[in-house]
Amino acid sequence: MAYNDLFLRACRREPTERTPIWMMRQAGRYMAEYRAIRQAHGFLEMCKTPELAVEVTLQPVDLVGVDAAILFADILLPLEGMGLDLEFAKGEGPVIHNPVRTLSDVKALRVSDPIEHTGYVMDAIRILRQELKDKVPLIGFAGAPFTLASYMIEGGSTRAYINCKSLMWQEPEAWHALMEVTTDTVVEYLKAQIEAGAQAVQVFDSWVGFLSPSDYAEYVLPHTARLIEEVSGLGVPVINFANNASSMLDLVKSAGGDVIGLDWRIDIAKAAEAVGPEFAIQGNLDPMTLFAPVEVIERKAAELLEAVGTRPGHIFNLGHGIHKETDPDHARALVRAVHEHSSRIRGASAS
Amino acid sequence: MAYNDLFLRACRREPTERTPIWMMRQAGRYMAEYRAIRQAHGFLEMCKTPELAVEVTLQPVDLVGVDAAILFADILLPLEGMGLDLEFAKGEGPVIHNPVRTLSDVKALRVSDPIEHTGYVMDAIRILRQELKDKVPLIGFAGAPFTLASYMIEGGSTRAYINCKSLMWQEPEAWHALMEVTTDTVVEYLKAQIEAGAQAVQVFDSWVGFLSPSDYAEYVLPHTARLIEEVSGLGVPVINFANNASSMLDLVKSAGGDVIGLDWRIDIAKAAEAVGPEFAIQGNLDPMTLFAPVEVIERKAAELLEAVGTRPGHIFNLGHGIHKETDPDHARALVRAVHEHSSRIRGASAS
Repeated sequence: MAYNDLFLRACRREPTERTPIWMMRQAGRYMAEYRAIRQAHGFLEMCKTPELAVEVTLQPVDLVGVDAAILFADILLPLEGMGLDLEFAKGEGPVIHNPVRTLSDVKALRVSDPIEHTGYVMDAIRILRQELKDKVPLIGFAGAPFTLASYMIEGGSTRAYINCKSLMWQEPEAWHALMEVTTDTVVEYLKAQIEAGAQAVQVFDSWVGFLSPSDYAEYVLPHTARLIEEVSGLGVPVINFANNASSMLDLVKSAGGDVIGLDWRIDIAKAAEAVGPEFAIQGNLDPMTLFAPVEVIERKAAELLEAVGTRPGHIFNLGHGIHKETDPDHARALVRAVHEHSSRIRGASAS
Repeated sequence: MAYNDLFLRACRREPTERTPIWMMRQAGRYMAEYRAIRQAHGFLEMCKTPELAVEVTLQPVDLVGVDAAILFADILLPLEGMGLDLEFAKGEGPVIHNPVRTLSDVKALRVSDPIEHTGYVMDAIRILRQELKDKVPLIGFAGAPFTLASYMIEGGSTRAYINCKSLMWQEPEAWHALMEVTTDTVVEYLKAQIEAGAQAVQVFDSWVGFLSPSDYAEYVLPHTARLIEEVSGLGVPVINFANNASSMLDLVKSAGGDVIGLDWRIDIAKAAEAVGPEFAIQGNLDPMTLFAPVEVIERKAAELLEAVGTRPGHIFNLGHGIHKETDPDHARALVRAVHEHSSRIRGASAS
């Protein structure tokens, strides 16, 4: 089979004979093959063992048929090198034992050295490029500064962001200093990934949708924009995904990138219009759609593809990560439906 | 002090000499006076004892200075009369012991009789109108059909809506039957509230933001639109609040109402433009702003009021319920800031 570069061509808004598809969190617990490995290894251990990270990264390429691989890793990995004590406690998600709450906490942080502290990520990327050389492109990724800062401040998951927003409003100097050192870390981390062989990078701002547009503009956007600017022009497309921010796409797109990632809360035709023709778009099927019968999945995939039409630069994806209880057969059905229906729309046979 | 009808005039888009403000969940745990009562009584007991519901409803009017009272109650109360076994388990939120999962489960439900099953709500409303007659208007409310259905199906709180969306997509007949009986219940419940004396009603679609626009349009909108149509024209304004749906305000407004409630994820000037001049708007400060220093609260309130300008029909509110850890002094500071700054903008002294 010939190398499938549909994903990269779509990122560059070049014509494609069909629409490429990958799924956020596609290397994950919905697959029995993933769970088999996860059962024998800790989550951080999997991230830090290139052979294991490589194996689970490849699983959905081979078994689900997606058009791109995305490195198996966690957005919080670079925090260890910054000086944070990170743990994935059983059933609790990430815990940071020394959360950042004051200016002096911020001043104690350092820019993580991507090779010294996260060299295992670069090793996995190098192996993956070998393994994938006849298959599909490899996507690297990082958390956006806001999302990483929110974890550092809260010390874990939250729904209220009391400490995070309090620091932002009460100590803007500490806030911006934290965003600076985090941005510097992410810039170095993504540059190293690109150097190791990542062919595109996605910036995940998973929690930015908890901010108002004015706070996003004042406290976050300048940092995200600097991040994206510094990793743009290195020869690989940058995907800017701001989750639950569909009501402020005008601001999101001003942060830059080649591709704007979309959650499922917006009609994709309206989103395409809002971001304009200078960006490719990625998205945006509700991940829970995969719990519907296959014929509903097919109908919804077709409707989404029809709404996009022949616009250059569409990468099909879910609007958020695939849910761990998803039936893998339904994920495969979605890939098949997207391939078949988009081939008809885009007017040429699938490559 | 003269009766303060600013809120009702703003609902009707009549000129007001200043902007009225109330806060979602204003009768709540952030107030020591509320906690003192809550400590001695169960949550459902408070809802079902008119004297207690009245007391906590009045607290923020007297102690925070808001321009409207909203009945203390829970959106799930009408579910008991439909045949659901509701409990507020300690620290867990609502639990429904007999969740709805099949068409036959749906068929076993009945339309709740608002007087027989929730007469205590109407009693509280009648007492409140007496107590409030020299003060401010009283708002009644109900959950929207989708939000109520999601609790009935899931049996409690969720973040994934697997069962809810699965029923919607797998058994549309059961889904629509459930939405029908729920809509009928809410119509009767709100009519009874209005008859008892509620001077406005708010429909809370708290969880509708987990739907894509196309699913909202297909599975929810027809029911919400019927609900709002049936309670409109009864002489009181209807507030349509669809939480986390700022990226689909075009659909939300097509469900109707006199006032469109806004969460904090959208610039209010853009939202005002999106809903158009035929609707009043309510919102939309990030509730967590109350954790900021008072001068930041004042600045953000002023910015929001400036963005609205002299548009007729603005009710100031938070974009979601006030958080339980909020300092009541900060809530008072917000009320004061809104009153003072809006008096300047709207060009007359406060009444």
